[in-house]
Amino acid sequence: MEVIRKVAIVGAGLVGRGWAIVFARAGHDVAIYDGSAEIRAAVIESIRASLADMRETGLVDAIDPVLRRLRVVDTLEAAVAGADYIQESVLERRDVKQAVCLEIDRAMRPDAVVGSSSSGIPASAFTEGCVNRARFLVAHPVNPPHLIPLVELVPAPWTDAGIVPWLRAQMEQVGQAAIIVRKEVDGFVLNRLQGALLNEAWALLEEGVASAADIDLTVSHGLGYRWSFMGPFETIDLNAPGGIADYARRLGPLYHAIALARRDPAPWSEALIAKAEAERREKLPASDLSERSAWRDRNLMALVAHKRRTGV
Amino acid sequence: MEVIRKVAIVGAGLVGRGWAIVFARAGHDVAIYDGSAEIRAAVIESIRASLADMRETGLVDAIDPVLRRLRVVDTLEAAVAGADYIQESVLERRDVKQAVCLEIDRAMRPDAVVGSSSSGIPASAFTEGCVNRARFLVAHPVNPPHLIPLVELVPAPWTDAGIVPWLRAQMEQVGQAAIIVRKEVDGFVLNRLQGALLNEAWALLEEGVASAADIDLTVSHGLGYRWSFMGPFETIDLNAPGGIADYARRLGPLYHAIALARRDPAPWSEALIAKAEAERREKLPASDLSERSAWRDRNLMALVAHKRRTGV
Repeated sequence: MEVIRKVAIVGAGLVGRGWAIVFARAGHDVAIYDGSAEIRAAVIESIRASLADMRETGLVDAIDPVLRRLRVVDTLEAAVAGADYIQESVLERRDVKQAVCLEIDRAMRPDAVVGSSSSGIPASAFTEGCVNRARFLVAHPVNPPHLIPLVELVPAPWTDAGIVPWLRAQMEQVGQAAIIVRKEVDGFVLNRLQGALLNEAWALLEEGVASAADIDLTVSHGLGYRWSFMGPFETIDLNAPGGIADYARRLGPLYHAIALARRDPAPWSEALIAKAEAERREKLPASDLSERSAWRDRNLMALVAHKRRTGV
Repeated sequence: MEVIRKVAIVGAGLVGRGWAIVFARAGHDVAIYDGSAEIRAAVIESIRASLADMRETGLVDAIDPVLRRLRVVDTLEAAVAGADYIQESVLERRDVKQAVCLEIDRAMRPDAVVGSSSSGIPASAFTEGCVNRARFLVAHPVNPPHLIPLVELVPAPWTDAGIVPWLRAQMEQVGQAAIIVRKEVDGFVLNRLQGALLNEAWALLEEGVASAADIDLTVSHGLGYRWSFMGPFETIDLNAPGGIADYARRLGPLYHAIALARRDPAPWSEALIAKAEAERREKLPASDLSERSAWRDRNLMALVAHKRRTGV
């Protein structure tokens, strides 16, 4: 397979627009399609605003060269026809993804590759009926993909074996960090790890061990420091004189005891959700959510610039 | 209770030395004692080296004013006698902590407060026999405490109720971020959260879902970005249009399914530990562990300086 030169973006919500930035800033030509004429009309201005924010933080040098590589098209066929790689980012619903993938399947070059931004539905659940189903897989980003580089590549059982390493290299070439998820497990890797920590956080809140704000502080002013540049295995590898095996033998029994205490996991109940909601809304009124999201994105950009400077 | 002016450090390993920096840079007088004459002889030079590293990153302005507030003493009594606050950081073993706390108990002012750096043993397990047991609690830092500010305050059932909010304010005054753990649960909050994520990481490795390196990337280039300045609850609060309740209702079922799949947690087996060890040692030979730890500390310092600049 060749390197990617032409990319199609199908679905231009937040995720799709982020992907468009990823590929265009790396020098690829990007054709963008969305089923909504309203979204199509607003795409370029929205991307221009994101690029302006990124330029302020030093994450891109110039906006216009990136924008010149983007074009918005009025049909899915026009976007997909010439593409080497197609990134599908439509609504996270099995029936919607299935219908769109069948459309992509009819319009794509048979040697193109299709990555789905699906965050939880495996490719086998919505690509079985595609003629070119061996060319489809999940390529799940973190939101927004132009700031957080991780992408989970999750092949379906029928995905061509050569596609996964090829797409990993292509993703790295455009500045993403791709991992390979070898089995179609619920939540893939990222949301399983996040879910494990969230489930424990909700349980501690429910039991009154700590407030939501204090649980948040434990991560934002404690655990999250190392995790912003090292994963959990490297963290523990450096946390005992003899490395990870030494650490695992010392602390494994404690962590096993913690796991044994959570053998009967309850769903997050409405009462518990109301408790967390009340605490959060006291700290941040619902009317301030979007302003706080902009604060988050500014901090993400500053962190990306910092990580680029320090090379981690 | 008054503000802290005089601090005693009992146990001057890595953690105790970090605490000495925390209190001395905030302007407190710090008396340091360790049971090992060898460690006592080396404490000041070791702290001077840490401060020199911190000055390079802009985290302290001058070394000598901090060092002048430190004195190393030859007996536990000499360290503890005049102290408003005593931070105990001896070996994490119940019998050792119990013996040292009894010594502290005999030497302390009855109105002083004693915080133990215990990372997992609750204060009730080693302070029951102390005359002043109402003045003892756990104040568990992350390592190293002069770089990562989080401290878990965990009172024993007999700790005076007024001490916890007082110590929280005192910790904030010296630049730490204190949380209150209301019950003496295994692993407190920090290691329960870390353990939940670790247990899932080890399970994914065991099942062959992903390599240890890819699981690490998922955190270092994905989840860890937001967690370096926001906790898990704030993260999900900003991840759905309607805030945390909206997010919990949409994604709760997925996370519950993930928890249900882990109802029979196995200990980290020797075979699994060997697998992780083999992968890590291929990436980082054992002989490079200490060099890589220095790399981690440089990155932590750079991150602390970055967070200070951006105010998060």
